[in-house]
Amino acid sequence: MSQPIWIGLLGLGTVGSGTLRILENRAQEIARHLGRVVKVKRILVRDRQKPRAVPVAPELLTTNPADILADPEIKIVVELIGGIEPAFSYIKQALHAGKNVVTANKDLIAGHGGELLPLAAEKGLDFEFEASVAGGIPIIRPLKVCLAGNKIEEVKGIINGTTNFILTKMTREGSDFAAVLQAAQALGYAEADPTADVEGLDAARKLAILASIAFNTRITLDDVFVEGITKITARDIEYARQMGYTIKLLGIAKEQDGRVEVRVHPAMISANHPLAAVNDVFNAIFVKGDAVGETMFYGRGAGELPTGSAVVGDIIDVARNIIDGNTGRLACTCYYEKPVKPIGQIETKFYLRLLVLEKPGVLAAIAGIFGQEGVSLQTVIQPHQVGDEAEIVLVTHQVKEINLQNALRCLEQLPIVKAISNVVRVEQG
Amino acid sequence: MSQPIWIGLLGLGTVGSGTLRILENRAQEIARHLGRVVKVKRILVRDRQKPRAVPVAPELLTTNPADILADPEIKIVVELIGGIEPAFSYIKQALHAGKNVVTANKDLIAGHGGELLPLAAEKGLDFEFEASVAGGIPIIRPLKVCLAGNKIEEVKGIINGTTNFILTKMTREGSDFAAVLQAAQALGYAEADPTADVEGLDAARKLAILASIAFNTRITLDDVFVEGITKITARDIEYARQMGYTIKLLGIAKEQDGRVEVRVHPAMISANHPLAAVNDVFNAIFVKGDAVGETMFYGRGAGELPTGSAVVGDIIDVARNIIDGNTGRLACTCYYEKPVKPIGQIETKFYLRLLVLEKPGVLAAIAGIFGQEGVSLQTVIQPHQVGDEAEIVLVTHQVKEINLQNALRCLEQLPIVKAISNVVRVEQG
Repeated sequence: MSQPIWIGLLGLGTVGSGTLRILENRAQEIARHLGRVVKVKRILVRDRQKPRAVPVAPELLTTNPADILADPEIKIVVELIGGIEPAFSYIKQALHAGKNVVTANKDLIAGHGGELLPLAAEKGLDFEFEASVAGGIPIIRPLKVCLAGNKIEEVKGIINGTTNFILTKMTREGSDFAAVLQAAQALGYAEADPTADVEGLDAARKLAILASIAFNTRITLDDVFVEGITKITARDIEYARQMGYTIKLLGIAKEQDGRVEVRVHPAMISANHPLAAVNDVFNAIFVKGDAVGETMFYGRGAGELPTGSAVVGDIIDVARNIIDGNTGRLACTCYYEKPVKPIGQIETKFYLRLLVLEKPGVLAAIAGIFGQEGVSLQTVIQPHQVGDEAEIVLVTHQVKEINLQNALRCLEQLPIVKAISNVVRVEQG
Repeated sequence: MSQPIWIGLLGLGTVGSGTLRILENRAQEIARHLGRVVKVKRILVRDRQKPRAVPVAPELLTTNPADILADPEIKIVVELIGGIEPAFSYIKQALHAGKNVVTANKDLIAGHGGELLPLAAEKGLDFEFEASVAGGIPIIRPLKVCLAGNKIEEVKGIINGTTNFILTKMTREGSDFAAVLQAAQALGYAEADPTADVEGLDAARKLAILASIAFNTRITLDDVFVEGITKITARDIEYARQMGYTIKLLGIAKEQDGRVEVRVHPAMISANHPLAAVNDVFNAIFVKGDAVGETMFYGRGAGELPTGSAVVGDIIDVARNIIDGNTGRLACTCYYEKPVKPIGQIETKFYLRLLVLEKPGVLAAIAGIFGQEGVSLQTVIQPHQVGDEAEIVLVTHQVKEINLQNALRCLEQLPIVKAISNVVRVEQG
């Protein structure tokens, strides 16, 4: 057996540790598979003295990025630092130095994929990022390769484990958001600052990556309409249940008539939809293609070993390409520039929960406003009285978001409407 | 743009028509993707005059296999005839002539993969067969590439649409097998001779392929224990429901202590298991890896366009390898020879439905026999009286199949046991 294929790890946090662990445990199998040994030569860390959860030879650790980025023996740089800087600079240096790159960094791909992928292509290098979306679930390669014969019509998924854990627990226990968030933080499923998760930004980055691949057009975080789950209450979940729906934080990307819509928001979906059964920290991505029909990919969207599994799958693939002299095999596929639909132009159904004065003619007045704005109603749940006020729940038919927003503005001005307690989109199919 | 990559289709039945349709519809996209046009040069059919569901230029059709197998311009042979012969001979000829092969033929891979894959590897050719298992669902490439860092512990799936349709309908309607089979035949979901589907042979072939890839050892149809769904009754399904189970025809492959178990049989699984929600003609494959944990791949396991989707995905991949001068990239991975556990050594729980004489001491006598054979009972559903006889339902704890079979033989000799009405394995986790 010839020389090992040397890799350099940038970062030894959760995913770095998982990656190292898998590479060690499976070293023999990987060598068997490739006919070459794959070995970690150096690992960039901030603190060489810090105790590590994973056994690692101290001489592998370095605090100097040049020990990896300027080492001509290292052929694959595995970036697991996360965030934009210094990861972005390191990856650019690595590519300029002729090194292939594997990364799990969703922020970077969603924000700067448009720069990094063409650079890798230009240099004939591999740049793989399966781990950046939905952890261990194979989704990027299946989309790029297995489903390449399809026109992808829709990608819809639960791509944030923290919010799915919270919504699952709210649904099972009837509890409200704040209490469940605390429990999730105590269990380590939500971070001390949960903003990126609960406000939908983490999911939006992953959706930008998925949509770029699915529709062959560059979608960045700024293109994605984002709304988090903080306003969802136990009452909304209960009303959803009564109507046969489950509330999930969905990332939804569709292409229609050459225009792309990309949005992350809480949505009611039919309790019979396969995504409705995806609970706790699990992720699942539903893909609809014109030939394959409906497919779904399910698994753990985060964690040391699941995410490490995706990183190591990429490392093995890149190593194979190095052996074959065939890196840069799967280049960037964003060869179109498709316009993104503004959120106002998107059509969905809407659930509305209103607090109104309990008196005759209220429903007629509300229905009148909807009618005037071209919004027709599918379901009205009879007022539930609270003192001299009453709660009404409405579900509209499919309507453009802008019409609904206009109707909401009119409703707010009706004296009989005390509050628009919540508005949740209802997703078909 | 240079010369097209020419392909030859063997067969223009359901999958052949789907493949041709997708290649036509997506010709421009595929060319954009690869930088080369992929074009069908000839199609082998039995009857050139037969009317075709898909538009096809008559000069493409030929009844002479040499028009494809001996044409040096054709670089990819796509075999969609099915069955062993003449497909087997054609594929061997194609490989000997230096042509890459894409096939959807599960019979052939499960029976002769051990000959064809090494032949392709020796010649440095691609031999791809994503469509042979679970139609359009990406599963072979995810297993071979994305999950390559994992030790796969288990593959468990619903990999036959006909039987899943039948069991779903029996579950929803409380009907018995024979009636639902007729309905399925009327809808075209079951063939006039349904044996291969309802007796589990079709699923067993697919499982042999999946197990070979998952465990890196050649598994053939003969290695798979197979039992069909014809003995499942509405009563069994109802008892399952009462105990929180759903009955599915599962293909199950596990590796433990270097030995592999591979079996296809109806099984009760927890109604909360993701596979329990896979209904109608849908397929799903659950894969458990030591790093990734539990993943699942869901979609349509058959049909013109879904299966065509997998075939075209493979064609594009092979075309890319031809362009790169890198065919034979993903060679055969069966580099071990792992023993297959005999069915008697496999451990599961069992559900038993017995018809017994209704008199005192019956349950004690039965329990005594189980105890004597080392089978302990987890659940006993109280006798349901039918005249002077009664129906008892038992679920055992985890037990070796051989012990259960011994207990059944003793039970059969007890005068109080009128019939062992059914025995169904109960699958954990």
